[in-house]
Amino acid sequence: MYKGLTIKPPFFEIGPKAFMYGERILKLALAADKASEKYDVRIIFTPQYTDIQMLAEATQHLLVFAQHMDPLPVGRGLGSVLPEAVKAAGAVGVMLNHAERPMTVSDLNKAIKRADEVGLVSIVCADTIEEAEAIARFSPNIIVAEPTELIGTGQPSDRKYIMETTAAIKKVNPEIQVLQGAGISNGQDVYNVIKAGADATGTTSGIMKAKDPEAMLDEMIRAVRMAWDEVHN
Amino acid sequence: MYKGLTIKPPFFEIGPKAFMYGERILKLALAADKASEKYDVRIIFTPQYTDIQMLAEATQHLLVFAQHMDPLPVGRGLGSVLPEAVKAAGAVGVMLNHAERPMTVSDLNKAIKRADEVGLVSIVCADTIEEAEAIARFSPNIIVAEPTELIGTGQPSDRKYIMETTAAIKKVNPEIQVLQGAGISNGQDVYNVIKAGADATGTTSGIMKAKDPEAMLDEMIRAVRMAWDEVHN
Amino acid sequence: MYKGLTIKPPFFEIGPKAFMYGERILKLALAADKASEKYDVRIIFTPQYTDIQMLAEATQHLLVFAQHMDPLPVGRGLGSVLPEAVKAAGAVGVMLNHAERPMTVSDLNKAIKRADEVGLVSIVCADTIEEAEAIARFSPNIIVAEPTELIGTGQPSDRKYIMETTAAIKKVNPEIQVLQGAGISNGQDVYNVIKAGADATGTTSGIMKAKDPEAMLDEMIRAVRMAWDEVHN
Amino acid sequence: MYKGLTIKPPFFEIGPKAFMYGERILKLALAADKASEKYDVRIIFTPQYTDIQMLAEATQHLLVFAQHMDPLPVGRGLGSVLPEAVKAAGAVGVMLNHAERPMTVSDLNKAIKRADEVGLVSIVCADTIEEAEAIARFSPNIIVAEPTELIGTGQPSDRKYIMETTAAIKKVNPEIQVLQGAGISNGQDVYNVIKAGADATGTTSGIMKAKDPEAMLDEMIRAVRMAWDEVHN
Repeated sequence: MYKGLTIKPPFFEIGPKAFMYGERILKLALAADKASEKYDVRIIFTPQYTDIQMLAEATQHLLVFAQHMDPLPVGRGLGSVLPEAVKAAGAVGVMLNHAERPMTVSDLNKAIKRADEVGLVSIVCADTIEEAEAIARFSPNIIVAEPTELIGTGQPSDRKYIMETTAAIKKVNPEIQVLQGAGISNGQDVYNVIKAGADATGTTSGIMKAKDPEAMLDEMIRAVRMAWDEVHN
Repeated sequence: MYKGLTIKPPFFEIGPKAFMYGERILKLALAADKASEKYDVRIIFTPQYTDIQMLAEATQHLLVFAQHMDPLPVGRGLGSVLPEAVKAAGAVGVMLNHAERPMTVSDLNKAIKRADEVGLVSIVCADTIEEAEAIARFSPNIIVAEPTELIGTGQPSDRKYIMETTAAIKKVNPEIQVLQGAGISNGQDVYNVIKAGADATGTTSGIMKAKDPEAMLDEMIRAVRMAWDEVHN
Repeated sequence: MYKGLTIKPPFFEIGPKAFMYGERILKLALAADKASEKYDVRIIFTPQYTDIQMLAEATQHLLVFAQHMDPLPVGRGLGSVLPEAVKAAGAVGVMLNHAERPMTVSDLNKAIKRADEVGLVSIVCADTIEEAEAIARFSPNIIVAEPTELIGTGQPSDRKYIMETTAAIKKVNPEIQVLQGAGISNGQDVYNVIKAGADATGTTSGIMKAKDPEAMLDEMIRAVRMAWDEVHN
Repeated sequence: MYKGLTIKPPFFEIGPKAFMYGERILKLALAADKASEKYDVRIIFTPQYTDIQMLAEATQHLLVFAQHMDPLPVGRGLGSVLPEAVKAAGAVGVMLNHAERPMTVSDLNKAIKRADEVGLVSIVCADTIEEAEAIARFSPNIIVAEPTELIGTGQPSDRKYIMETTAAIKKVNPEIQVLQGAGISNGQDVYNVIKAGADATGTTSGIMKAKDPEAMLDEMIRAVRMAWDEVHN
């Protein structure tokens, strides 16, 4: 587990996947940067690899992460995403093992070690509680408990699932942070998940497919803060 | 075949793979930019995805290409390399189907169409003459005829192989350009390949593992010009 | 191209995929064996790997093919499907590059050579006319012209598509046979495709999802014969 | 964890990979069947998929396992290895996640569940102690603790590694059995591993590349028995 950067809860992950890039993603990143400061909520932002450096340079509060990286060392590997290159471009972390980019057990283990080595926060996705427990053995910084069947459905995780996954992961390693994913469509969904006890949540479709992505982003980050304050104050 | 940019021979491809990144690749790219102008040789340069924008902005003559891209459309696809994002970052082309990043027949066909669509020169690798002929059906801009068994061996392609592959590819589509790859270790190797009739060649190890990569780069580009002038004047 | 076995048209491919196995696939294979003799139509039958030997031993007319094989040589390769093992089990051919099991350009090229080497008829799938032309360069015995978008839709290929794909493939290599796939749901669809000029067609869902698969099989093979006789007599 | 079949220690795994098939593998399987009875040592034997049924029918004591299977349900999936088909062919178990056939975290989790569901003993490979602990969360029947760097080197695992991996796995789930792999070249290596406290070991190269594979097999199984009796009597 990389110790060089601790992400203080509450936090929120925005995953542009392949929806936005270039000028458009810059606009969204600037809005996220502003919302992060305004609501005192940490935002993990995972753009296309090619946009990492631009966004890292243009923002002050945003936590720019790569969408994936390969566990290879410096050397051969055409078409790869080298951990050192991700770090050098200004990313502070990396997402691993998303359902759209699954990794083998061995590569995931190695990639988390490489993240620790080069100094990147690792956020790793798990489909089931069992997978979350297994992945916890590799000591990533954050685990995304995101039941694959919910991705893009607009149905948020419920309190029971949130409590169980968090407890199961913390039992293996209490230092691992848990992000509750899947099914976030609007501020109310965000509010519900954080109110149900989560430290963090996130979305792709909820913002990417919104009529006004920047407005939806603001609505969601505001909801994080509101629910968090109600639970923790 | 993308018609928006024609790369005038002679040209040379430098493939940093995962050997260099960040400040180090910037230094090499600047040396390549200078050599390109000095010797009037076009240089295709394929950095890590994360370095594309930096190099495209820092150079004037260099042809910055992505090492790979995925044939997906704008939308989902976490961990992918979106064609539109590659273009927006400043790349003018993309390499596809390298032996270290092989593509399925169907994905390669789609990726070449996507390159045409977003405006990227496509340079596609082939292991054998049969593969080069098959790939020629997909009308990429450039085919790299690079027998896999030679990669990294320091043994350059011979005149007979150069003539045969070029003829076989041109027979399918005379507009496709041919780059003769594999086994280039120094300026003499470069000279021999261009002197044997090639329009283009390239290297990874030859420069990446050289004691002084910038000096080797200059030696190789100079050799391209010298051999080319002897053949064509 | 393997010359040890020529499949005389008309022929028909039944692809059980992972729908049937064990006793159930044996029953269907025996019905196919009977229909092949009764209607004088060659039937390519692609069971699970584990059922190849049982079906090869239990049938007399059926052409048992593997669903896929790997281009590796004898030696290492745990989890692989070795060409020599496929042949030894009694298969007479192998399907390659189906949309559900796509192969890289290089592996497909090698696998066709391996099929020739060990003595297996190769039947290779292509998604588009361009892919069919590209694949034709590798000289397989049969190309399945099966637009991916039609798989499982119940909409058969039309006469124009049949004529164009056949001509495009034969232009590259007139010895390659063409099977027109996709969208076959019943005997009428089969009749239409053969009547439109195809030498061969086939189905998965049409038989696998039929209420009475053996009856549907008989209906389809009868339709092949009827249409073939109308066109060729 | 599948409870329908418990493999009593000591046991030994013979992995023919793609080295032997057809008549040759039958000869070896018959010798293994005989050695299993003679020395009262359970033998897991993982032939090519196409040879499973033949070997299951020809042997009485041998535990025939598939080299791999896919976690898919009955239905589509051309080129797949269906769990139900593996079971129907006579296999009693399946190997998963070998270094030559690595699986994603999610697929491995699903494949172990599928093995439980159809009634197959699961034997899962792990490269490192951390991976073994992670995989133990999925409750396979057996974990192969086989450091990838040792595969094929002829250097057996030492006592300390054996004790540590076994303890780490048993701590997660004491019902999981542990097979100590890698580097077995002859009877002496086998003796050393079992004498060092292992319940099971195995080999590929040690037998496949022996001048007389059947003689080497007998030597190794005899060594299992001898060492086991010295430790346990």
